[in-house]
Amino acid sequence: MKVYEIQSEFGLDQLKVAERPIPNPGSGEVRIKMRAVSLNARDLGVIDGFYNPILNAPLIPVSDGVGEVVALGEYTSRFKIGDRVSGIFTQSWISGEPTQENWMSSLGSPLDGLLAEYVVLPEEGLVRVPDLLTDEEAATLPCAGVTAWHAIVEEGTVKAGETVVIQGTGGVSLFALQFAKLHGARVIITSSSDEKLKRAKGLGADFGVNYLNTPEWDKAVLELTGGRGADHIVDLGGSSTLNKSIGALRVGGRISLVGGLSGFQVEGFEIIPAILRKARLQAINVGSRDMFETMNRAVEQNGLRPIIDSVYPFEHSIEALQYLAKGSTFGKICITF
Amino acid sequence: MKVYEIQSEFGLDQLKVAERPIPNPGSGEVRIKMRAVSLNARDLGVIDGFYNPILNAPLIPVSDGVGEVVALGEYTSRFKIGDRVSGIFTQSWISGEPTQENWMSSLGSPLDGLLAEYVVLPEEGLVRVPDLLTDEEAATLPCAGVTAWHAIVEEGTVKAGETVVIQGTGGVSLFALQFAKLHGARVIITSSSDEKLKRAKGLGADFGVNYLNTPEWDKAVLELTGGRGADHIVDLGGSSTLNKSIGALRVGGRISLVGGLSGFQVEGFEIIPAILRKARLQAINVGSRDMFETMNRAVEQNGLRPIIDSVYPFEHSIEALQYLAKGSTFGKICITF
Amino acid sequence: MKVYEIQSEFGLDQLKVAERPIPNPGSGEVRIKMRAVSLNARDLGVIDGFYNPILNAPLIPVSDGVGEVVALGEYTSRFKIGDRVSGIFTQSWISGEPTQENWMSSLGSPLDGLLAEYVVLPEEGLVRVPDLLTDEEAATLPCAGVTAWHAIVEEGTVKAGETVVIQGTGGVSLFALQFAKLHGARVIITSSSDEKLKRAKGLGADFGVNYLNTPEWDKAVLELTGGRGADHIVDLGGSSTLNKSIGALRVGGRISLVGGLSGFQVEGFEIIPAILRKARLQAINVGSRDMFETMNRAVEQNGLRPIIDSVYPFEHSIEALQYLAKGSTFGKICITF
Amino acid sequence: MKVYEIQSEFGLDQLKVAERPIPNPGSGEVRIKMRAVSLNARDLGVIDGFYNPILNAPLIPVSDGVGEVVALGEYTSRFKIGDRVSGIFTQSWISGEPTQENWMSSLGSPLDGLLAEYVVLPEEGLVRVPDLLTDEEAATLPCAGVTAWHAIVEEGTVKAGETVVIQGTGGVSLFALQFAKLHGARVIITSSSDEKLKRAKGLGADFGVNYLNTPEWDKAVLELTGGRGADHIVDLGGSSTLNKSIGALRVGGRISLVGGLSGFQVEGFEIIPAILRKARLQAINVGSRDMFETMNRAVEQNGLRPIIDSVYPFEHSIEALQYLAKGSTFGKICITF
Repeated sequence: MKVYEIQSEFGLDQLKVAERPIPNPGSGEVRIKMRAVSLNARDLGVIDGFYNPILNAPLIPVSDGVGEVVALGEYTSRFKIGDRVSGIFTQSWISGEPTQENWMSSLGSPLDGLLAEYVVLPEEGLVRVPDLLTDEEAATLPCAGVTAWHAIVEEGTVKAGETVVIQGTGGVSLFALQFAKLHGARVIITSSSDEKLKRAKGLGADFGVNYLNTPEWDKAVLELTGGRGADHIVDLGGSSTLNKSIGALRVGGRISLVGGLSGFQVEGFEIIPAILRKARLQAINVGSRDMFETMNRAVEQNGLRPIIDSVYPFEHSIEALQYLAKGSTFGKICITF
Repeated sequence: MKVYEIQSEFGLDQLKVAERPIPNPGSGEVRIKMRAVSLNARDLGVIDGFYNPILNAPLIPVSDGVGEVVALGEYTSRFKIGDRVSGIFTQSWISGEPTQENWMSSLGSPLDGLLAEYVVLPEEGLVRVPDLLTDEEAATLPCAGVTAWHAIVEEGTVKAGETVVIQGTGGVSLFALQFAKLHGARVIITSSSDEKLKRAKGLGADFGVNYLNTPEWDKAVLELTGGRGADHIVDLGGSSTLNKSIGALRVGGRISLVGGLSGFQVEGFEIIPAILRKARLQAINVGSRDMFETMNRAVEQNGLRPIIDSVYPFEHSIEALQYLAKGSTFGKICITF
Repeated sequence: MKVYEIQSEFGLDQLKVAERPIPNPGSGEVRIKMRAVSLNARDLGVIDGFYNPILNAPLIPVSDGVGEVVALGEYTSRFKIGDRVSGIFTQSWISGEPTQENWMSSLGSPLDGLLAEYVVLPEEGLVRVPDLLTDEEAATLPCAGVTAWHAIVEEGTVKAGETVVIQGTGGVSLFALQFAKLHGARVIITSSSDEKLKRAKGLGADFGVNYLNTPEWDKAVLELTGGRGADHIVDLGGSSTLNKSIGALRVGGRISLVGGLSGFQVEGFEIIPAILRKARLQAINVGSRDMFETMNRAVEQNGLRPIIDSVYPFEHSIEALQYLAKGSTFGKICITF
Repeated sequence: MKVYEIQSEFGLDQLKVAERPIPNPGSGEVRIKMRAVSLNARDLGVIDGFYNPILNAPLIPVSDGVGEVVALGEYTSRFKIGDRVSGIFTQSWISGEPTQENWMSSLGSPLDGLLAEYVVLPEEGLVRVPDLLTDEEAATLPCAGVTAWHAIVEEGTVKAGETVVIQGTGGVSLFALQFAKLHGARVIITSSSDEKLKRAKGLGADFGVNYLNTPEWDKAVLELTGGRGADHIVDLGGSSTLNKSIGALRVGGRISLVGGLSGFQVEGFEIIPAILRKARLQAINVGSRDMFETMNRAVEQNGLRPIIDSVYPFEHSIEALQYLAKGSTFGKICITF
């Protein structure tokens, strides 16, 4: 079978197509014929050696995808041949709080990922995907969907009537928008593109703030909330946004720390404004299988459709990753097999 | 001004129209010209001496209503003349957890209620009502709305994808239905009337179970949830429903104890099924001003309209209460001034 | 090896000693040489057919115990030969919320229990026990300890300054007493024996109420709390205690439903008092591996010693169970091998 | 009566003794004869114009203190003449979550503080203090005590068996130490002084880390926790400590943001380590009256005594503030009248 591999060096130009034997499922494992994967910024970080500078090659990248169960190992019971399943990003994080050990079980690094025609995974590390979704749509859920669900619903405990600020229009952001609207909240989206703000409104966003025209977007949020501030801010910008996120927050509000699109180091993080807003900052690192399954029920019951930016065939995976590297999508980039 | 009073004896037939001087607001108080009230089963209980057998007469009954601020006492700042306001059911329960003392400040017993042309209340015991609502709609919020919000959202922490079972189609039940749907949950309504079930579906209910045809409605709920059970059950039936509510619950589910339409004493409450479901039973007694204001934001932002069963003029208040006593409404009964 | 078995009929007099081959650990499993078990009321219920009237014989009873790892199956990594371990009561409940499926993995029914010289269990279903405890002490933790921890700490979120009422002086009750005191709470113990109340005070209980002399113990609790009521009541009595537990509760207080020493069916459970106290009733069914390990850290760091009522040798196991059936212990009954 | 006032300029050398008439309690207010105050770093910040650069003079500084009720205004009922009471730091924050408006009611800025022979406060802004405490001890509770209680118990939900890291040995730190130990937790104290670490151990600290000798105290914490990291870190250092606090945290751990002893601006706050620890950062700004009263019950029931560094007479208040400015106390500085 064909796979993509990080082999002797880091860098997208070093990613190689390779041939491996189709793997056999051991005890408690199943073999999956991949149908679609979706890409995350983290996948690029792995390929570039950003997250783990030690080369643990050869490594198959890409954490998120959906496939069909085509073979069952001994002592399996959760799935049957033909089921459509997704791998959980953190394979061993089933329920409750995560542990340091759980991080060692992430797909696409340190474990082999899904940019391969077939993969073998423990059945405990899989979930059934909602029937109403296409393969591409289902492939977007494991990181972007679960991260947004974790931020908005599990830690964010979103309620109707609340105001949620969401930064950007990438995969996590659009899921966060959809999940917040699904719970009756009001959503303010920030973006550098008026066109994307317009599309976000088409998906239900109540307000859009272009941070190029309105660099003090925190003040815009205060205005839109009658001076009260937002209940919850999903911070994906990191470096250049965190202090403003605190400035835009209501007293007793919460911030989900999800990403660092503008950098992962905040220069001059200000503590006094955080104290005056009794801010809660909650870092989010994807989520558990329980969260994934809970989210799937919400997706299924409400007919929610993930937003796809573009789809590439498996043979053009490197092009797909190059497009991701440009960093300016509206929703998710997928690859089909 | 005209008021209704419980005077020398309990009983709806003893409720009298009386004349009182228009009251003047003291320090921190405002005078409100009433525009509409709504009725709750509790109002009848008070008139019948059910809740408090000691006659504390004369007492103006009815806890819920909306009016216009027409005079301001000294040291007031929260409202201005002309504002449309509702009294909070538990006048002194502002935020956080309630106390025994808070119960002493309930409108309509032990404090005078709102079935009067004018009332004076402390400004701290009032909230501004959403502009989009008519007076009658706004008058339904203080008990029925806040109780349902408290049950479904605050203690119930409803999430999209969950299944909520709601008993009946009275005021609390229809608000609970609306709030659950507002958060993307799936709702199963139980009723003895197919016609009401049909109307509830028109409001968004996903399933209806007629407990006359299907006395084992707990099993129907298990079936509708693929054997898993409901995440949350709003128990309004009390006596005849509580054990079945537990039977219909998923492991780790929760029950809101809100009422006792079939009686307030449960014969043979079973502990083992409760333990096997790790059930949480949370008794709900209306809610705080904070909850009321949070609910109002949700109502306003989502354009939610309370369901009115019927409207009577102030002069026909006793007829309205007689109709309430028949116990079979779809939504709220209101009285206008 | 020797085991005790429920064979063809229910009843303690039908419990038989039998011979089975020493079991071999499969993939992911370990073999444990048992050193001590402790008894719970549930063990008697299983032997009597109370919990599951269908005879799934032969079944080894008794869920709680401690032993030494003596053989490792393939693909094990959590333990090494010589480690002292306990089985988790609900073998598959690792973290987070339980599921219906988890209950199917309880030791001592439906799975074989620990009243056997050797047992084989999955390594995921085991925890390391605190070094400072004797075998007998460690054997008391899986049900009684974890149940009390779950009730007092996890769901009960006990805080210094709170008042906790604990019913009786059996295993769960004494652990609950110790855990509540460990968190700076004030404890009121109820019992029918002045002598046991005295011993409970020796373990730190602040007050004792003899419910034979003081049948209205709820009023005694109100008095001891200056009329405010208790913050938390661990209800083990069930049938005859639940209404009184609500009567003794503060507004906003919580009750842990743990047992039914006086019966599992509450005649005339009263809803109005529950509503007037905004009572939360949380049913408790032992707990997860995470809770067990968290509790073990608390035990270890604070040098907490479980209370042993009496110890029997393996050969006299039936005597130990007969003594348990008398129902009036102070702490736990253990059996050593 | 004599008071201290910030008059025409900021700065400790500009603080003046002035004469004001003894104030009279209005409706709902009481007059208090001050007996003792305690000092907080914030008091110096107010005097120096750090928190509010606009001079709102004349202002009586100092937020925390205890006194005796000597006169009651109309419509008061919570206290009687002779009661010993403390003002709540945030006068209007009674229960639940705070609001922006609540901050406007802080004593010692923007409202007049307690460095005066008599003060008048609303009775709703007062709490009764535990009998067992001396005046000086009771005077330490409103900021330092409540802040520590809020951090450790309310938001921190401390449990026996957890490891809590506390920075420094000032007032908040020593209360945090005492409250953590009261709940059976293990405490690691950091300080630049071996002598203070020794004294902290005398108060129950399990370990001390001198960050002068051990600048990588985060690694020391990892070692002391077997590589797992601390459950909770009370961060008082701010600028120079926050990244290390995250480094010392377990996955799923929490940090209370309480102060900025080394500066309130964190250069290069790192997001990735926060995400890899699923860190929760909760800013703490003192607390509500409910928290204060809950803490008082814990103090009273457990006989906990606040730690006093030194006591000055009212006439030497400026000396006391100068001593505070040196920044190196062990517990609280008090002033008596």
